[in-house]
Amino acid sequence: MTPDEFRRHGHAVVDWIADYYARIESYPVLSRAKPGQIRASLPANPPARGETFDAILGDIEKLIVPGITHWQSPSFFAFFCANASGPAILGDLLSSGLGVQGMLWATSPACTELETHVLDWLVGMLALPEKFLSTSTGGGVIQDTASSASLCALLAARERATNYASNRRGCDGKLVAYTSTQTHSSIEKDIRIAGVGLDNLRLIEVDENFAMRPGALAQQIAADRRAGLTPCFVCATIGTTSSNAIDPLSEIGRICRENNIWFHVDAAMSGTAALCPEFRHTHAGVEFADSYVFNPHKWMFTNVDCSCFFVADRKALIQTLSVLPEYLRNQATESGAVIDYRDWQVPLGRRFRALKLWFVIRHYGVEGLQHHIRRHVELAQQFADWVKADNRFELAAPVPLNLVCFRHKGGDEVNQGLMDRLNRSGDLYLTHTKLANRTTLRLCVGQTNTEARHVERAWKRIQEEATRVA
Amino acid sequence: MTPDEFRRHGHAVVDWIADYYARIESYPVLSRAKPGQIRASLPANPPARGETFDAILGDIEKLIVPGITHWQSPSFFAFFCANASGPAILGDLLSSGLGVQGMLWATSPACTELETHVLDWLVGMLALPEKFLSTSTGGGVIQDTASSASLCALLAARERATNYASNRRGCDGKLVAYTSTQTHSSIEKDIRIAGVGLDNLRLIEVDENFAMRPGALAQQIAADRRAGLTPCFVCATIGTTSSNAIDPLSEIGRICRENNIWFHVDAAMSGTAALCPEFRHTHAGVEFADSYVFNPHKWMFTNVDCSCFFVADRKALIQTLSVLPEYLRNQATESGAVIDYRDWQVPLGRRFRALKLWFVIRHYGVEGLQHHIRRHVELAQQFADWVKADNRFELAAPVPLNLVCFRHKGGDEVNQGLMDRLNRSGDLYLTHTKLANRTTLRLCVGQTNTEARHVERAWKRIQEEATRVA
Repeated sequence: MTPDEFRRHGHAVVDWIADYYARIESYPVLSRAKPGQIRASLPANPPARGETFDAILGDIEKLIVPGITHWQSPSFFAFFCANASGPAILGDLLSSGLGVQGMLWATSPACTELETHVLDWLVGMLALPEKFLSTSTGGGVIQDTASSASLCALLAARERATNYASNRRGCDGKLVAYTSTQTHSSIEKDIRIAGVGLDNLRLIEVDENFAMRPGALAQQIAADRRAGLTPCFVCATIGTTSSNAIDPLSEIGRICRENNIWFHVDAAMSGTAALCPEFRHTHAGVEFADSYVFNPHKWMFTNVDCSCFFVADRKALIQTLSVLPEYLRNQATESGAVIDYRDWQVPLGRRFRALKLWFVIRHYGVEGLQHHIRRHVELAQQFADWVKADNRFELAAPVPLNLVCFRHKGGDEVNQGLMDRLNRSGDLYLTHTKLANRTTLRLCVGQTNTEARHVERAWKRIQEEATRVA
Repeated sequence: MTPDEFRRHGHAVVDWIADYYARIESYPVLSRAKPGQIRASLPANPPARGETFDAILGDIEKLIVPGITHWQSPSFFAFFCANASGPAILGDLLSSGLGVQGMLWATSPACTELETHVLDWLVGMLALPEKFLSTSTGGGVIQDTASSASLCALLAARERATNYASNRRGCDGKLVAYTSTQTHSSIEKDIRIAGVGLDNLRLIEVDENFAMRPGALAQQIAADRRAGLTPCFVCATIGTTSSNAIDPLSEIGRICRENNIWFHVDAAMSGTAALCPEFRHTHAGVEFADSYVFNPHKWMFTNVDCSCFFVADRKALIQTLSVLPEYLRNQATESGAVIDYRDWQVPLGRRFRALKLWFVIRHYGVEGLQHHIRRHVELAQQFADWVKADNRFELAAPVPLNLVCFRHKGGDEVNQGLMDRLNRSGDLYLTHTKLANRTTLRLCVGQTNTEARHVERAWKRIQEEATRVA
């Protein structure tokens, strides 16, 4: 494909995306495809000879869109959102076009330095502790997901607790880690991956608001120490996936400090709220954290994947993850004057992800980002008020930010039926969880283009279907 | 940004990329930026108010390009290439635009089913064993890098060898893994991450062509068994990073089978060669493999990141990596009729990467891909002939495909000086390794737009600088 052909086909793809966003509300939010349906429409064998770009692009609408669940629909209220925006998509396009692989500083200095710079910006934007700055002892890095970032935090914790001997000797079955019962499932997965073992993960009980009980944590740590085990890692959450619960960071942080345990804070969804001073109370105690992760690809208008991971002591991370074979040696690395991000993550290779984040921050500006976050929180609070005012429904958890957990009082089956009917209708998409062992519906307001009318319509449809189900 | 603004700005970005490719040969291939230079040109603080898109895009040329090492330059011969192409960039753009997160089948059936389908295509295209087909006992998945894919292979091996108990109990220090001394550094990193420990990684010696000695492997496995250890994982390479050495898969595979050891094959770079029947001898014995990885983002015209990972027994992989919290439960998953790719990788979230791969295969067709691969190999072989014909130089290793390892006979300092001068000139970029403890230059032919004139010029420049250095 010559540059001029690329220009022509690229315009067509951009036009297709612009049209897609213009008509996105006409699609059912949750795909109606049946298992195997999309595959059945694809040819059994790859083409021997090349096809025209028009034919390829034409198949997007015909073969792919029926199998799309529209995460960018303003009526997508499921899971945690993964919002995107024009500047993010175009920043990402430039990253694809430049096609650099930023494993080393030398393999594209701008890829590394823009990333370091923008992540330092974010420390200020979210009012995170200064130790997370690259100009201090720490620094930030973009990873694909919070799962991967938390794995790196756990690995650094494992190494620090063993004086960096686990890398060499392997795990010994004596390391212990702590989360609450509400912590994201990725931590359980990370514990398994890192060889610590699920038997050595303590799930600390939560209070009536689904937040970790620090007293229970302290007791468990003491018991493990008495048993000759080595507590090495605590993960607290700002905004759990089930209910947006906020663990008490200050008390947990003090316990970690007293016990010399790595303290990791998972703010994957709700970190973005700290852009607004009035929501920073959710982050009280973050100054105790050894590491912190939040996902601009959830609620900060940056398309998947973009997870920002900060550490207070970059040396611990680098000592844990560094390898330097001969074929990667170069003068810049040897000088010690540069960051090589391959040592801050699991993979060696890496995309130029900072571009899309830089574009988003510059396009919206800090005030623009704050405006949208405030609006999402306001819409969720409004929705929560409607739930409270309808005596068929009840809130199932506090609503600190933009996630509303609620249920019909008719019981689990009614809630499941209600959700299935709503999702099948295509008018909106929401998902469920269990809180206190009861089926609970979740409505998360965070898609870039969600406005009052979308949330109003969602509530109207929920009320309509509730009448039918009950 | 409204759809119409997106259309306008999107056209401008596409034009910028088209122009970039049109003038890419005018840039120095290796960036000349000094450490800190790019950062110093960026404002200390993020903007409070949004900026115009024109201002943002204008800064790409001014602030970013000076810090780019041009991986897409046809004179990029360093490391292993990471080539891209128009259809890949545009497929990736659609992925960014659709903005789906494919953690579950239900969260976009097309994202999962297109991926499964295209990876089944690749099994046929590379003549891989049928057990890797999703319609058999195995299947393929797209990961970010071979590092991550190999980590998943190692984890599944670890679990299978412990009857899936390591996930629960953690590692016990008795598991042993095997690579050659030439295996990619990512395996060492994976061994550390998985809690196996470097002390339990055996680096098997290589022959005069830098390929693993199967006899030495068998002896080491026997010795470890006698010592009460549990051999669990062997990684062989088709095309090592240092010298493109090809390990004898058949002999290694038989040893693994006799000893019930997971056999992983890393063909990150050279897997693409198997598109051409005449290069499939490099894959002889791949039928013994339990898992296999190759990177279309290296040599198959698909921009970073796109690494294809195949397993023969998908149940082992899923049992190793599956987690299912309540908030991810859904009818499709419970039915057992769909693939949820979150259970095939470390992260939970995932991009719609299959689009770019599908676009590449359809745009080029199988014959088009074969044509370009053959051409790259031909150019590398031509270069190797020139080296042999110049008595100042010598080849440092066999040249099975598209990587030429060579050196000036003047010794390490001359070679280092030669490489530094060439890279500083901006005319080309090549990197080094050590083979038999001697500094060796590497020239890899694989960039999408590399033609005979670029390789000819590279050789001319090497000869010129050799005259000056010596």
